[in-house]
Amino acid sequence: MSVIDEVLAANAQYKETHDASLYSPQPRRKLAVLMCMDTRLDRHALGIDFGDAHFIRNAGGIATDDAIRSLLISHYMLGTEEVMVINHTDCGLQKASDEEMHALMEEKAGKPANLPVRFYAFKDVAKNVEEQLERLASHSWVRKELILRGFVYDVKTGRLTEVPWKCRRT
Amino acid sequence: MSVIDEVLAANAQYKETHDASLYSPQPRRKLAVLMCMDTRLDRHALGIDFGDAHFIRNAGGIATDDAIRSLLISHYMLGTEEVMVINHTDCGLQKASDEEMHALMEEKAGKPANLPVRFYAFKDVAKNVEEQLERLASHSWVRKELILRGFVYDVKTGRLTEVPWKCRRT
Repeated sequence: MSVIDEVLAANAQYKETHDASLYSPQPRRKLAVLMCMDTRLDRHALGIDFGDAHFIRNAGGIATDDAIRSLLISHYMLGTEEVMVINHTDCGLQKASDEEMHALMEEKAGKPANLPVRFYAFKDVAKNVEEQLERLASHSWVRKELILRGFVYDVKTGRLTEVPWKCRRT
Repeated sequence: MSVIDEVLAANAQYKETHDASLYSPQPRRKLAVLMCMDTRLDRHALGIDFGDAHFIRNAGGIATDDAIRSLLISHYMLGTEEVMVINHTDCGLQKASDEEMHALMEEKAGKPANLPVRFYAFKDVAKNVEEQLERLASHSWVRKELILRGFVYDVKTGRLTEVPWKCRRT
């Protein structure tokens, strides 16, 4: 049985108790969280329940064009008012450069990439959070009413620490 | 107290019971899930626990360049072997065209976008899932050993339904 088949079996159980009235497309707490896809980050560590927030997740918790797209939809179409950007200690993107990841994948895949990939490797996690906040704020549609705050999650201690950042949006 | 401050208070409680030994960067079940950021989608409905899988999430569950980037890191650097692509019924991206979303945001923001945004609006959710699978499979580094399967989650019933799709990767 593949893992996906196990998920389908679990979902077949879940649907018996599903109550659609508990959930709406609008996040209950008007919160959007942009964070890394890492397994060690989870809503449970944030006290966030099913239905409370939008989670936008990618490798690193990077403010890519795609993350900005999602955030704009979250804010303008679904009413979120606060945004947390969460990166974490011991991130895979700190362990290899873009060039090293390219070389590794090209070797393992046995062929070059047919479409270019930028991986967004970084060294300093707090500085990286700051850069993501700057990048979000640089979009003219990320208006100043939308609260942006950035954090580092320590995977050893489970603790979130805020990255001081002064929004310069006008 | 802002919602983010509430999250910080919840995290201060959480960290007292955090056990780092339970989690590793490698997803326990070697699974990556690309799904919509919608509040009505949650690992709970899939029987997936904290630490089991990578979640890559954006508006719609679209196989953007960013999602492909994240998936390549998930597979090559962190050992995932199966991928679920999950879109859902009643998605916000089915309710307005790209042009309508642009017009709405430009009006609410009171200025044009300084950086272009493509929103990936769609009409038919099953067809959209198929297109995302095709897009993932089109990357030369998404090798055929990586299992790709696509699903529609019904937000009313809580049920996942597989979208038949025959991978044509070589």
